[in-house]
Amino acid sequence: MKRIGILTSGGDCQALNAAMRGVAKALYENIRDVEIIGFLDGYKGLMYSDYTKLNPVDFSGILTKGGTILGTSRQPFKKMREPDSNGLDKVKAMVDTYKKLRLECLVILGGNGTHKTANLLSEEGLNVVTLPKTIDNDIYGTDITFGFQSAVDIATDAIDCIHTTAASHSRVFIVEVMGHKVGWLTLHAGIASGADIILLPEIPYDIDKLIEAINKRTEEGKQFSILAVAEGAISKKDAKLSKKKLKEKREASLYPSISYELGAEIQERTGQEIRVTIPGHMQRGGSPCAYDRVIATRFGAAAANLIVKGEYGYMVGMRDGEIVKVPLSEVAGKLKMVDPKSSIIEEAKLIGISFGD
Amino acid sequence: MKRIGILTSGGDCQALNAAMRGVAKALYENIRDVEIIGFLDGYKGLMYSDYTKLNPVDFSGILTKGGTILGTSRQPFKKMREPDSNGLDKVKAMVDTYKKLRLECLVILGGNGTHKTANLLSEEGLNVVTLPKTIDNDIYGTDITFGFQSAVDIATDAIDCIHTTAASHSRVFIVEVMGHKVGWLTLHAGIASGADIILLPEIPYDIDKLIEAINKRTEEGKQFSILAVAEGAISKKDAKLSKKKLKEKREASLYPSISYELGAEIQERTGQEIRVTIPGHMQRGGSPCAYDRVIATRFGAAAANLIVKGEYGYMVGMRDGEIVKVPLSEVAGKLKMVDPKSSIIEEAKLIGISFGD
Amino acid sequence: MKRIGILTSGGDCQALNAAMRGVAKALYENIRDVEIIGFLDGYKGLMYSDYTKLNPVDFSGILTKGGTILGTSRQPFKKMREPDSNGLDKVKAMVDTYKKLRLECLVILGGNGTHKTANLLSEEGLNVVTLPKTIDNDIYGTDITFGFQSAVDIATDAIDCIHTTAASHSRVFIVEVMGHKVGWLTLHAGIASGADIILLPEIPYDIDKLIEAINKRTEEGKQFSILAVAEGAISKKDAKLSKKKLKEKREASLYPSISYELGAEIQERTGQEIRVTIPGHMQRGGSPCAYDRVIATRFGAAAANLIVKGEYGYMVGMRDGEIVKVPLSEVAGKLKMVDPKSSIIEEAKLIGISFGD
Amino acid sequence: MKRIGILTSGGDCQALNAAMRGVAKALYENIRDVEIIGFLDGYKGLMYSDYTKLNPVDFSGILTKGGTILGTSRQPFKKMREPDSNGLDKVKAMVDTYKKLRLECLVILGGNGTHKTANLLSEEGLNVVTLPKTIDNDIYGTDITFGFQSAVDIATDAIDCIHTTAASHSRVFIVEVMGHKVGWLTLHAGIASGADIILLPEIPYDIDKLIEAINKRTEEGKQFSILAVAEGAISKKDAKLSKKKLKEKREASLYPSISYELGAEIQERTGQEIRVTIPGHMQRGGSPCAYDRVIATRFGAAAANLIVKGEYGYMVGMRDGEIVKVPLSEVAGKLKMVDPKSSIIEEAKLIGISFGD
Repeated sequence: MKRIGILTSGGDCQALNAAMRGVAKALYENIRDVEIIGFLDGYKGLMYSDYTKLNPVDFSGILTKGGTILGTSRQPFKKMREPDSNGLDKVKAMVDTYKKLRLECLVILGGNGTHKTANLLSEEGLNVVTLPKTIDNDIYGTDITFGFQSAVDIATDAIDCIHTTAASHSRVFIVEVMGHKVGWLTLHAGIASGADIILLPEIPYDIDKLIEAINKRTEEGKQFSILAVAEGAISKKDAKLSKKKLKEKREASLYPSISYELGAEIQERTGQEIRVTIPGHMQRGGSPCAYDRVIATRFGAAAANLIVKGEYGYMVGMRDGEIVKVPLSEVAGKLKMVDPKSSIIEEAKLIGISFGD
Repeated sequence: MKRIGILTSGGDCQALNAAMRGVAKALYENIRDVEIIGFLDGYKGLMYSDYTKLNPVDFSGILTKGGTILGTSRQPFKKMREPDSNGLDKVKAMVDTYKKLRLECLVILGGNGTHKTANLLSEEGLNVVTLPKTIDNDIYGTDITFGFQSAVDIATDAIDCIHTTAASHSRVFIVEVMGHKVGWLTLHAGIASGADIILLPEIPYDIDKLIEAINKRTEEGKQFSILAVAEGAISKKDAKLSKKKLKEKREASLYPSISYELGAEIQERTGQEIRVTIPGHMQRGGSPCAYDRVIATRFGAAAANLIVKGEYGYMVGMRDGEIVKVPLSEVAGKLKMVDPKSSIIEEAKLIGISFGD
Repeated sequence: MKRIGILTSGGDCQALNAAMRGVAKALYENIRDVEIIGFLDGYKGLMYSDYTKLNPVDFSGILTKGGTILGTSRQPFKKMREPDSNGLDKVKAMVDTYKKLRLECLVILGGNGTHKTANLLSEEGLNVVTLPKTIDNDIYGTDITFGFQSAVDIATDAIDCIHTTAASHSRVFIVEVMGHKVGWLTLHAGIASGADIILLPEIPYDIDKLIEAINKRTEEGKQFSILAVAEGAISKKDAKLSKKKLKEKREASLYPSISYELGAEIQERTGQEIRVTIPGHMQRGGSPCAYDRVIATRFGAAAANLIVKGEYGYMVGMRDGEIVKVPLSEVAGKLKMVDPKSSIIEEAKLIGISFGD
Repeated sequence: MKRIGILTSGGDCQALNAAMRGVAKALYENIRDVEIIGFLDGYKGLMYSDYTKLNPVDFSGILTKGGTILGTSRQPFKKMREPDSNGLDKVKAMVDTYKKLRLECLVILGGNGTHKTANLLSEEGLNVVTLPKTIDNDIYGTDITFGFQSAVDIATDAIDCIHTTAASHSRVFIVEVMGHKVGWLTLHAGIASGADIILLPEIPYDIDKLIEAINKRTEEGKQFSILAVAEGAISKKDAKLSKKKLKEKREASLYPSISYELGAEIQERTGQEIRVTIPGHMQRGGSPCAYDRVIATRFGAAAANLIVKGEYGYMVGMRDGEIVKVPLSEVAGKLKMVDPKSSIIEEAKLIGISFGD
């Protein structure tokens, strides 16, 4: 009998369940005697032996379901090496649970932070296979993560709705898009929805050029401007600040987020009314789109296949349209950012989208 | 030949185009020689003779289209009796345009403010027929307005998305729903999406009871609470302030809206993390839902039928499932609010929804 | 302790789970000591004592879920009085299960057939409360049933999609809409989606007038016609046949449904290409729309309230916008059809929709 | 001044307008003095000089719009070399129009047939740039075509709806998916929606194995089976027939499509009830999904960039995630089919999906 552990960690996203269903279906189909153990609330379940035996029926009907049937939690990597409040050695506790349960392998679904810990566990000698989940699409080693396209759909929908109502009034609409420190989500949703201006963390904006872009539209007789603004967008000025100074500045700010701050500045300088939309956690929720379900299912099946073949220490990903396995050591600790010189940025500029740079 | 004028006024919403298509199709089908004149940007077009002749082709394919093909603008009723910046008498200007064009009738699509002006024009002797549009559903004399159900769908969708992602973390999610001074939209979207707590302008909340409701959920082991909060929601304390004091208090507030202010208070008193979602103008946009398209089309056809029969001075509406005509004088200046003692509130309380009262 | 039984019967539809959640939440909130028993697969579960104890957690998260957590089955009313294949007296078996479990009341969610049996059980002395579910909206005694609006949304979506692709080719598109023997679904979806021609069981079509309506569009330069055809649509000629003759004719037909038969005739007589779309069971599936969730929740809460008050023998429904209770004896055995002289038909004709009559 | 012609040809699909908007925006932004001529209804407009001058406003607001603002028509390549009914030499006529208008280049959006003619025009010396549009995703030389993902979304939605209603009854549901002679659409929608059995033209099915797969599900206690069947699916037996024989057999068939024929056979051999859903042309319609809008916009911008640089005779496509230009001669006359040995098929089989082979 092979016993496989599985957990989901970090901020949740769409298609986590679809991916776990892919893993489970392929394990049940291809290993004669297999048992799947689900750890609850991410690494916490592994640490504190909080788990449940999963059966085929648990994976039935979850393909289309948002969230994760196992729950998740954020466990900052920095604190993994520190003992918990009861003095427990976290890493040792996780290794102990793994050994106590005589696991053949641990399947871990998560984002950037999750992959650092997964690599750590792999280095500790555990058999680990991971799947790249995040709406941010910032995981190194794979062209695409599941969750991303579903979030693009939701953010695009938001801007679409704004578009139909924008036409009648002279206003600047700001839609704040998630994405943490990277701009993939904002970039794709911005292009998909015909945003006029797109602000990304990777391309700090020059406030004067931004104002100029808005004024240019007004001069051309366009009654409104739509800005897709990444939650991590940053001005050229702020980009030059030290990390510490920037943190201080933000904590002192009266505004709950970049959009309100930027909105106030635009209002002051252009005299136009500002409307702010914050889809927020909507972008992590809802049923996964067909695209995500297909790649999540494929990733899941491929992960099971690695287990069948006994190949461990890998993340399953996609490169150039092909499913690949990437050594965890290559993935951990890196961030995949939008390249300001990439062809998608070039094409966006060709059609007149301003990045405020 | 009969010449009919048409205009859309106030904040836009879904199904404005569907309603105009209904009017136009029914006019073209049932009056041998008819011409339709569209005034641009609401009453402004009528004031300043800014109009265009519309043809059947202009109404083709607009059934599903958000926004309004005529544009709209907000013209506060209070200022209708004041001259404009060039000293123009606005009401006289509108009457003059009407007469100059020898209009048979003016079809006006709008909300509360719009209806005051429509009634005024009717009193000035113009033939007027109106249609009730607004996502707020606050127009007196009709059970339902078009735009409302589409906005309910969007706000419900937003809370649905939050729901799937909420389950994994211990948090309070606040979704701020539009609706101006009334709570229809929040009430329906809140029930439809399974919100735990619903705050409406019509039922001022007691902050202590609200905190209690959240804490009760936590004690019951529920990991999150979802609050559907009307943009016009108000605390019992604030509800006692004079209008002037309340305005001052709000202008002095550091928070861009009620949600952030309320969120800060909840965070302080419960210690839970807060996440705020502001769908904002999304709620006015997008393609109208099937329900709105049907009632908008029916309202439009019924308005045309009034014109065929030469019956003027009415708003078309729906009461008890039947299309009715309501004298404009009965509609103007009134607001249809949620009755805190109505059966829908009672049913919501029966299933355990808290209104913080 | 009060023990309440619940079951769903007949063809399934959206918002069944939402309604059951409404019942359950309101029972748990308002009766100190209550137990809910769910019978599986409709009346079969009651007949054969196939049931499960339901707990609050079973009703959590089902508001948005299509289908029914209890399963359903079709049990033709005609056969209720006949013994089953093992000689079991079905009605007696149901009464026995009810008594054996010492049920306070049985909550039954179903359509027309279901209500006949519910009335029978009520006449046998059981305490029964029912909820009207069906996409057909054909239940007597209520203006609206849950499931209907969700199905309208799906059928409307189908025709919307056809519309965008129809414009480029000279074709007749037939979309076959469900609805059993009534035309509510086709009528609403047809108006909502701008269908050119709508065929309903209640308004038998004259094939010559139908062809004429299509040819008229072609002559006016319109490149396509979209027909929303109820699965129960019938020609004037066939409407005159005896039930038996009609059945024979249909069984002898080479066509799988009315759409293909009608399509062949239209193709022959107009020379236009025909494209048929059969959304079929799609119309019963998917997440319920916000409208249905609200009324299903309200109906559920109102049903629980009847139980709290000990009022039995009623269906909960909606009339003129108010929740009402309707004696089962008034509901059973009747069909609510579209009135060909109703105002919605009149309005549809006003805007030029042809009913082929 | 540069004058660019543009046309859309073949069956329509989503994102045609998005792609043309991309071309136009990039041309207006990057060529000082440019004029865009739109030919109506595909190659017919080029043949018969039926065109219109397009202005920036014509491309405004069409990003989200299904269909094509230019219209389209099917012009079988085989007949391109034959004169039309008036004896007109079609190819010469197209070349003449091009020359008469002194076009710099012709941008052609189309599928397989369209590309054969585009290559022909290129060989005749015209400057041609093409964009790959089709829901079938069968164009050689590009990994992806726009329209495909939107159609996947719609077909997935259809099967999702079936899923929620399928659970309660013992039935076989057949959903017939478009795709012409290839199975991409069925494969992706089938995986995305959790279909149990997927039938593709590229993997002829063995009817005995198919029946076996259905019976196996029944034996395992599963109450229903969902089949995603490509409109071009074929049995092993039929796949051995000569083209002529196959055509004869199909013309003699009583069934309007493969689904009904297959359904009848399954019903006979398994005794299960069959339900057929034919989304049909729905799959070509509706607003393009975000994914398609992004690639269509990028393809459009890249096509304009080729024009800016004077590089002609290419199709714009995507390979391994990069925008590429592919010589038309490499594209024309080839079909991109699903490889039965590809990794996506392998992964689908890993999770237990049957292809009936």
